[in-house]
Amino acid sequence: MSEPLRIGLAGLGTVGVGVIRLIETNHALLSARAGRELQVVAVSARDRSRDRGIDLSAYGWEDDMAALASRDDVDVVVELVGGSDGPALELANAALEAGKPLVTANKAMIAHHGLALAEKAEARDVALKFEAAVAGGIPVVKGLREGTSANALERIYGILNGTCNYILSTMEDTGADFAEVLAEAQAKGYAEADPTFDIEGVDAAHKLAILAAIGFGARLDFDSVRATGITQVKAADIAQADTLGYVIRLIAMTDVEQGSDGAPALLQRVRPCLVPKAHPLASVDGPTNAVVAEGNFSGRLLFQGAGAGEGPTASAVVADLIDIARDEVGAPFSIPVARLTAMAPTEPGHRMERTYLRFTVADRPGVLAEITAAMRDAGVSIESLIQQGRPDEGREVLVAMVTHEGPERSVSEALKLLEGSESLTAPPLVLPILPA
Amino acid sequence: MSEPLRIGLAGLGTVGVGVIRLIETNHALLSARAGRELQVVAVSARDRSRDRGIDLSAYGWEDDMAALASRDDVDVVVELVGGSDGPALELANAALEAGKPLVTANKAMIAHHGLALAEKAEARDVALKFEAAVAGGIPVVKGLREGTSANALERIYGILNGTCNYILSTMEDTGADFAEVLAEAQAKGYAEADPTFDIEGVDAAHKLAILAAIGFGARLDFDSVRATGITQVKAADIAQADTLGYVIRLIAMTDVEQGSDGAPALLQRVRPCLVPKAHPLASVDGPTNAVVAEGNFSGRLLFQGAGAGEGPTASAVVADLIDIARDEVGAPFSIPVARLTAMAPTEPGHRMERTYLRFTVADRPGVLAEITAAMRDAGVSIESLIQQGRPDEGREVLVAMVTHEGPERSVSEALKLLEGSESLTAPPLVLPILPA
Repeated sequence: MSEPLRIGLAGLGTVGVGVIRLIETNHALLSARAGRELQVVAVSARDRSRDRGIDLSAYGWEDDMAALASRDDVDVVVELVGGSDGPALELANAALEAGKPLVTANKAMIAHHGLALAEKAEARDVALKFEAAVAGGIPVVKGLREGTSANALERIYGILNGTCNYILSTMEDTGADFAEVLAEAQAKGYAEADPTFDIEGVDAAHKLAILAAIGFGARLDFDSVRATGITQVKAADIAQADTLGYVIRLIAMTDVEQGSDGAPALLQRVRPCLVPKAHPLASVDGPTNAVVAEGNFSGRLLFQGAGAGEGPTASAVVADLIDIARDEVGAPFSIPVARLTAMAPTEPGHRMERTYLRFTVADRPGVLAEITAAMRDAGVSIESLIQQGRPDEGREVLVAMVTHEGPERSVSEALKLLEGSESLTAPPLVLPILPA
Repeated sequence: MSEPLRIGLAGLGTVGVGVIRLIETNHALLSARAGRELQVVAVSARDRSRDRGIDLSAYGWEDDMAALASRDDVDVVVELVGGSDGPALELANAALEAGKPLVTANKAMIAHHGLALAEKAEARDVALKFEAAVAGGIPVVKGLREGTSANALERIYGILNGTCNYILSTMEDTGADFAEVLAEAQAKGYAEADPTFDIEGVDAAHKLAILAAIGFGARLDFDSVRATGITQVKAADIAQADTLGYVIRLIAMTDVEQGSDGAPALLQRVRPCLVPKAHPLASVDGPTNAVVAEGNFSGRLLFQGAGAGEGPTASAVVADLIDIARDEVGAPFSIPVARLTAMAPTEPGHRMERTYLRFTVADRPGVLAEITAAMRDAGVSIESLIQQGRPDEGREVLVAMVTHEGPERSVSEALKLLEGSESLTAPPLVLPILPA
């Protein structure tokens, strides 16, 4: 057996502690699979004195995280600090510049700086690996980088944020409204104290941008992801979707089409969608994640599992370490950064889809006529329309409708025609219907 | 870019033709991802003159398959001939002995000769890859070899035979009986003219033995797989399962327990099971395959997709070729053959499970008393029992029951007590209930 792979680990939060626990628990097995021992030699975190429930006395300590990269006894650096910039990025750069492989679970950092980091790694022929940055314990970065590598992918889409999926599926099970379930999720630790990144779709957007780069050979472009979160979804929408045969899920989706200039254009968006109950993603409940990749030869592949948490994320981090121990380097985004294609974002207005629309309206005569006239004038064809049972006179009521398939821009135009209308008491909610 | 990877391909059936089509169709993309061109230089098959719908004139031809291995212009051999021995094995040995990497889709050959072939590959430090041998286009060999590599796996189980799954899910949808659906599946090409290997569970057993070796570091042991096929499942069983909240699927399952001598013992079995409708495997319909791996850190992971067919299988073969082009060799079974653990088969009689039992009985007084007495005497506790509506006097009737959780051996003992009973007009059917 070869020399041990000596690890310097920065960040001792949930995932960092999980990685140390995993390496201790599965030690012999990791050595057998990696062909060499995985050995944590030094760690670093913001606060040395905090009790983390594990014994750190066997490991060296660095107050300065970046110093891990320059230790002679560290072969590979694991960054579990978090944050797109600051100490995490400083450490990542220091490691790669020192010619040491880097493993990270940091989706924000990879989404923002992945190309620059990958260029540094490629220039020095060292590994940059980030399996844990996308979909927790599910090996989907490897799945797309290597598993589906023979395919031109047609679409990649899935459920990439466990917090939103927990909230939506709990709303579904309990009939409770968003705010109530969010508060409960925070109490249980399924949602952060500041849940903005999760519920506004930013976290899913980070992950989607990474998958798009790997799957389509596109230059990573986080800024072009269009993300809509789940804060506007009401219990009534979920009930309405159920009646129609759907569940609501936050779906991240990316594909490539030919742009108007003939060059490939990249669609990347995160939106709550109506998912047909028979679709594999409809049965993905709680904090589970799932990714579908549709290849031109493989057909539809589904990867599903725990999207976050100590164990699953540690599992992904250590799988990357085993790859490094096995000397499997490879381009971080499947093909070298210099050969990735810069793709403009698509203008998806021409795309055909069915849409669920929900209006919050004043309960008075003429409202339905106004809405349906706007639909007609924009060329939107209505498949079904439900005005929910009239409450007391003068209160708000919800009007929900499903359109026939039509170009996305027609729905946008209809909504523009209704802008400023006194009939609408709140902005309408637009949820696309995911094709089966 | 490096030199092309020059491929010699044997076997021009569905999968072989698929590989050639894939390499032609996705040519530029494969070069980008592999870092070098994938180039088929020579092919071989039993009959040169057969029209396969593709132009083979650009490729060299060998009448003798094994000659592919000795061609100077072949860097890697792809074996798509099939059969556990004969020309396939001869070619595989020739390739590895010549120090050339081998890619194969041949589950029977790997199940029977995988260790010997892997030893040859390891001795020469060349790759032996067989992603396409298990679950078609689903990257589950890679998933277990690399994706879950940080975990001690607790169980691996899933749906590994598309033909059986097509038959069972079609029986479910149509209410038709086994023989009828099998005939239809044969007409549609979903089942072979001789379907024995599929419907008796042998094909699933081949794949299971391969997954067990990779997942548990066990010496591959196909002969110890206990396989029961689906030929005894009646439409009435499927209807009964439905009433109880289950579907019937052919489930391949493997795990490791401590044997009575303290050494690890390997469970490998293929059985039709009742699967709770809420379980992810219950919604796997048609010829789809799915594999669940439960890791001690990752938790439950699911890999799902097309289990067979030209495109998906070709996708898996070419993914292996890309790995080889990227110079990712590694031990075929994740750890070197010499370090795999020989494990005795388990005697699973002590295992606790709930069981569905169906008796075909003569319609006369005392039959139920006899069956329930045998259950009582063997210590089997009955949770529910349904005798289906009495048809005309003197005909056979079905008695179905579900047991409470109990040791497997108790059910076997009860059946032994009933052996030779004149009340039973056919052998009983025993289907375990998969825990949620």
